[in-house]
Amino acid sequence: MENTNSLKEEHRFQVRKLELSDKSKGFIELLQQLTVCDSVSDKEFEDRFKEISTYGDDHLVCVIEDDFSGKIIATGSVFIEKKFIRNCGKVGHIEDIVVDGNARGLQLGKKIVGFLLDHARSMGCYKVILDCSVDNKGFYEKCGFKQKEIQMVKYFV
Amino acid sequence: MENTNSLKEEHRFQVRKLELSDKSKGFIELLQQLTVCDSVSDKEFEDRFKEISTYGDDHLVCVIEDDFSGKIIATGSVFIEKKFIRNCGKVGHIEDIVVDGNARGLQLGKKIVGFLLDHARSMGCYKVILDCSVDNKGFYEKCGFKQKEIQMVKYFV
Repeated sequence: MENTNSLKEEHRFQVRKLELSDKSKGFIELLQQLTVCDSVSDKEFEDRFKEISTYGDDHLVCVIEDDFSGKIIATGSVFIEKKFIRNCGKVGHIEDIVVDGNARGLQLGKKIVGFLLDHARSMGCYKVILDCSVDNKGFYEKCGFKQKEIQMVKYFV
Repeated sequence: MENTNSLKEEHRFQVRKLELSDKSKGFIELLQQLTVCDSVSDKEFEDRFKEISTYGDDHLVCVIEDDFSGKIIATGSVFIEKKFIRNCGKVGHIEDIVVDGNARGLQLGKKIVGFLLDHARSMGCYKVILDCSVDNKGFYEKCGFKQKEIQMVKYFV
């Protein structure tokens, strides 16, 4: 019985690529736990989904769907920047990591970040970077990151 | 005479998009002032140039050529990330800003950053972000940026 349960548990929280149908599974509501993200219509979602898809493996958005509830409970993205420095190297940029507030403690954030890191490595990146609040520093250190520089921002709106 | 000179000066330091022929004008040597960037062959440069070009306006590399010396003396890049958050917003990521050590004090860095900011704004970005050392914080503040988060990095090699 224990084996069956742990197999079920493992299947329950698999990371996969974002799909068009994920909008109806609470993907946008999940992002709202991260920041401002209101009023995305089905059309807007589909258009943006397709725009991102044109980049192929250079821009990956992944999710974890809870097979029990049918809801998206974690997500994250990485895009691959192509540079001239580092002998025409590539850098992975991780963005928009969020885990459902009701699904904390299940290591889903780590799963998402691990999936994105594996992808960036397989794409030939020499490093992966991300920006986070000081509060989240400890989490990313557990994922193998180290603090380096500071982030500067300029808002247009 | 003064007018003629200042016109010449203005023409001398115009920002433009990177061109294939810029490799022979010291573009790679300029990047070497920023970080590790050795042994890029003409073929590698051309391949990477073309790869970046496939992104069109979503990935812009700009340069300043000194019309007197025919050398590239400043460069910077911005790429446009397409998100779902912020109502399917876009974010500009500025990377790899460098000004020739012999061309300091001419405000070329500000020109490059201004060019990239204008581009990001025209592409509909709601913000532009970049990572920099604490030493360079003052420069980016003069460009209108504010410090926000911290940068985390994980190296694969």
